[in-house]
Amino acid sequence: MTKSNKNSGPEARLPKGFLDTSPDDIRATNRMLATIRQVFERYGFEPLETPAIEYTDALGKFLPDLDRPNEGVFSFQDEDEQWLSLRYDLTAPLARYVAANFQQLPKPFRRYAVGPVWRNEKPGPGRFRQFTQFDADTVGTDNVAADAEICMLAADTMEALGIKRGDYVIKVNSRKVLDGVLEAIGLGGEQNAGRRITVLRALDKYDRLGAEGVRALLGKGRKDESGDFTKGAELAPEQIARLIEFLEMAEQTSSNLAAGRGSSDLDAKNIDQDAFMIPKEGSFYGDAAVEGWNELDQIRGLVRDAGFGVDQIRLDPSVVRGLEYYTGPVFEAEITIPVVNEDGQTVRFGSVGGGGRYDGLVERFLGTKVPATGFSIGVSRLQAALAALNKDKPAVSDGPVVVLVMDKGELPSYQKMAQSLRAAGIRAEMYLGTAGMKAQMKYADKRGAPCVVIQGGDERAKGEVQIKDLIEGAKAAATIKDSKEWREGRPAQFSVPEADLVAKVREVLARHKG
Amino acid sequence: MTKSNKNSGPEARLPKGFLDTSPDDIRATNRMLATIRQVFERYGFEPLETPAIEYTDALGKFLPDLDRPNEGVFSFQDEDEQWLSLRYDLTAPLARYVAANFQQLPKPFRRYAVGPVWRNEKPGPGRFRQFTQFDADTVGTDNVAADAEICMLAADTMEALGIKRGDYVIKVNSRKVLDGVLEAIGLGGEQNAGRRITVLRALDKYDRLGAEGVRALLGKGRKDESGDFTKGAELAPEQIARLIEFLEMAEQTSSNLAAGRGSSDLDAKNIDQDAFMIPKEGSFYGDAAVEGWNELDQIRGLVRDAGFGVDQIRLDPSVVRGLEYYTGPVFEAEITIPVVNEDGQTVRFGSVGGGGRYDGLVERFLGTKVPATGFSIGVSRLQAALAALNKDKPAVSDGPVVVLVMDKGELPSYQKMAQSLRAAGIRAEMYLGTAGMKAQMKYADKRGAPCVVIQGGDERAKGEVQIKDLIEGAKAAATIKDSKEWREGRPAQFSVPEADLVAKVREVLARHKG
Repeated sequence: MTKSNKNSGPEARLPKGFLDTSPDDIRATNRMLATIRQVFERYGFEPLETPAIEYTDALGKFLPDLDRPNEGVFSFQDEDEQWLSLRYDLTAPLARYVAANFQQLPKPFRRYAVGPVWRNEKPGPGRFRQFTQFDADTVGTDNVAADAEICMLAADTMEALGIKRGDYVIKVNSRKVLDGVLEAIGLGGEQNAGRRITVLRALDKYDRLGAEGVRALLGKGRKDESGDFTKGAELAPEQIARLIEFLEMAEQTSSNLAAGRGSSDLDAKNIDQDAFMIPKEGSFYGDAAVEGWNELDQIRGLVRDAGFGVDQIRLDPSVVRGLEYYTGPVFEAEITIPVVNEDGQTVRFGSVGGGGRYDGLVERFLGTKVPATGFSIGVSRLQAALAALNKDKPAVSDGPVVVLVMDKGELPSYQKMAQSLRAAGIRAEMYLGTAGMKAQMKYADKRGAPCVVIQGGDERAKGEVQIKDLIEGAKAAATIKDSKEWREGRPAQFSVPEADLVAKVREVLARHKG
Repeated sequence: MTKSNKNSGPEARLPKGFLDTSPDDIRATNRMLATIRQVFERYGFEPLETPAIEYTDALGKFLPDLDRPNEGVFSFQDEDEQWLSLRYDLTAPLARYVAANFQQLPKPFRRYAVGPVWRNEKPGPGRFRQFTQFDADTVGTDNVAADAEICMLAADTMEALGIKRGDYVIKVNSRKVLDGVLEAIGLGGEQNAGRRITVLRALDKYDRLGAEGVRALLGKGRKDESGDFTKGAELAPEQIARLIEFLEMAEQTSSNLAAGRGSSDLDAKNIDQDAFMIPKEGSFYGDAAVEGWNELDQIRGLVRDAGFGVDQIRLDPSVVRGLEYYTGPVFEAEITIPVVNEDGQTVRFGSVGGGGRYDGLVERFLGTKVPATGFSIGVSRLQAALAALNKDKPAVSDGPVVVLVMDKGELPSYQKMAQSLRAAGIRAEMYLGTAGMKAQMKYADKRGAPCVVIQGGDERAKGEVQIKDLIEGAKAAATIKDSKEWREGRPAQFSVPEADLVAKVREVLARHKG
């Protein structure tokens, strides 16, 4: 591997849909994750880490009519020919973990997890094949208080990250209410289970495709811009009309609620009631919805009594979340601030996370019902939201102090200076390249150094070092016109006894932090 | 997926060689990683994250005579039939990153990275197929000061983690010295490159297999306990004798050094010289070694001048590190404390990380030489070392306060209590299950709760809550013999006005932290 050939080496490229992450993004994300972790811990959730690789059947990703996993997951065969896959979310591994350790776990079991997941899908703008999720789930209780707690957790997380009320909202709906709508148009019962999933997936695309697109997906099907055809649910025209009517009504309710958010003119309690009243008035719902309404009513009571307002958590019939495995309440965390999308339109920032109750996942393994509810944050989406809200800026440049190398014979003494700064807790490095003074200054700039340390022969003879304050220097250079004056005045550069190096550098750093 | 069948569900199991990680381990590891990160940042290293998946050719994992990746890596074909693999270390992705972004990077480029890597190998005791590495590398300089800095970084990291001098040592050797030994026995030159690698791999097994095992691997080959045969390097008897003599001498030097570590009877400077003198005296070395000796001499000067003693960083000819791609100095961080191994023998804990200079990795992509040096910590190995040294214990139990549910009609008020504790920064949860008082107390014990909060009808009528201090209660139960006395006295359980809940819980927590 040490041999190389100028013409036959591999190309240095990343596979499509994957990203390298820059130092600034890593630091901003780590700060955000630490805050989220703190809130989740405060709610009594315990961390759990599961490996990236699971048996494919444990992920539930074997299609019944194929002998290989479907294409949504990255899969490979182990040496014993069993299929393994990279996890595509953190929920399926949790279900496997709970089933495998059921006896030992405290019940209910609250766990949080953060880590990468992988999707073997066509990448696109903003759609990556590896991304990080941060999940909290409560397993082993069908108590609706667990769902209410998840909503409170989500709201407290947004606030801990500095997102103001009105800039976010946790929206709550119930899969059972949606099932009620479907029941009312004759899609109830076991025999329509598959069709209901097709319909839910179509309804979930309302935000993106609008009424026309969803109408097509509920009917014969839809061809997208790339020419790909998606087969439709083949509903009758009157069924489609009822569903579109429901979506439009839900959207209207949702935007009425949004318009009133944070406004003191409106009675928050009334707005909250509206979210319920509008759908309840119609004849939209089959019997399946009654239980759903009752649960939502309880959630509302619990979050209000715990002190959360309608500007933090509210019921919203427009939340669909098409995922097949939800069985009760569903949640969505939305950032409501306006942003400009790819087409130049001003839209709401949108969802940064979601979840719901899924009572069937652990049952797959154990055969007995183990109810569960949870919430998943899309880490890079939330990070992007914080950036849009200007909440992710570090307070100061955190580049290292750079000790320049003026005389290669004196490396040990430069190294010692860097080391004494580090020992004092200051980020510092000695320049390790071979370039001259000018290029070393450029290097220091590129590194975001707050100052450089210089010791040539003259300074050494006097037992001194020079400290050049780059931030002050840049400011001075911007105001002083005369370059001769600048050179002679040498603003922001001064000599200190070598013994005072650490103290003086600390003063320079403190000046810029203040 | 919501349907289940008691007889046909998948089994809840992890693939062999993979692990779930417990809350305590996660917290201990996170504390350790934060400390390492702090030291690496202080040295001016910048974080970088690359994805888990890379093109297989970028990882350099194609065998020359096959059209598919070798078996050490997990691989799969993308839809365009190109091979993708999970990274097996953090160095190959760094080389790809540097080659792809060469123009924009500050040079030299110091980066650190932490994350999982995957090996598609047969798992065994302590050998997993996913594990975490924490790396620091300096790319773009052949300055030996960069190697010295890596050694200093490694030593400072051990000390920041609370590992005492004498309990760890950073050992330094040079691949060039080893090449000198090989040259002296007639294995120099381009034509012997492949054979040298076989020999180095054999030498690296000296710790594990002893002289007899290595002798076999240098000769005709060796059959292990499972019956697998490894083909040998087929050296002549006198070549083998010279190599074994070198290994034994190196081992002797190393253990002389270890015996003298930290002892004030011995002159540290002399010990350090010994490490050099012994090998230099012999006629063991070919010309290739001279440059290596000079570099090691410089490293020694730099680390001593920066204030590091021979009990922290020292030259040690027994370090082999068989990896093909090292081209200069090689490093190993060893924990020297005694532990009992699987066979009941007392041995040194051993290596927790290592690295070296690899000047060929980036060249594979760019065709031009880009020298680099670095160090990789095995995170779970280091965590195990800290556990063996008792450095990873949290100060107090960090379980949540549990609010018991005495009356299901009062969920909102219990929820509110939990919420008021959380708002004050205290870990708290309301019991979410359906069990009675006794089972709820068991649950609180299992959760490591410092105290529980109880409010029945009587307390509610008086506007009070009871706080039961579980830690104090356990202590009292251990001293009070008479169970009647215990029940009547109700030690460590007391009533407080509901308004004082947060303040009183805080007092209980403070009592146990103090």
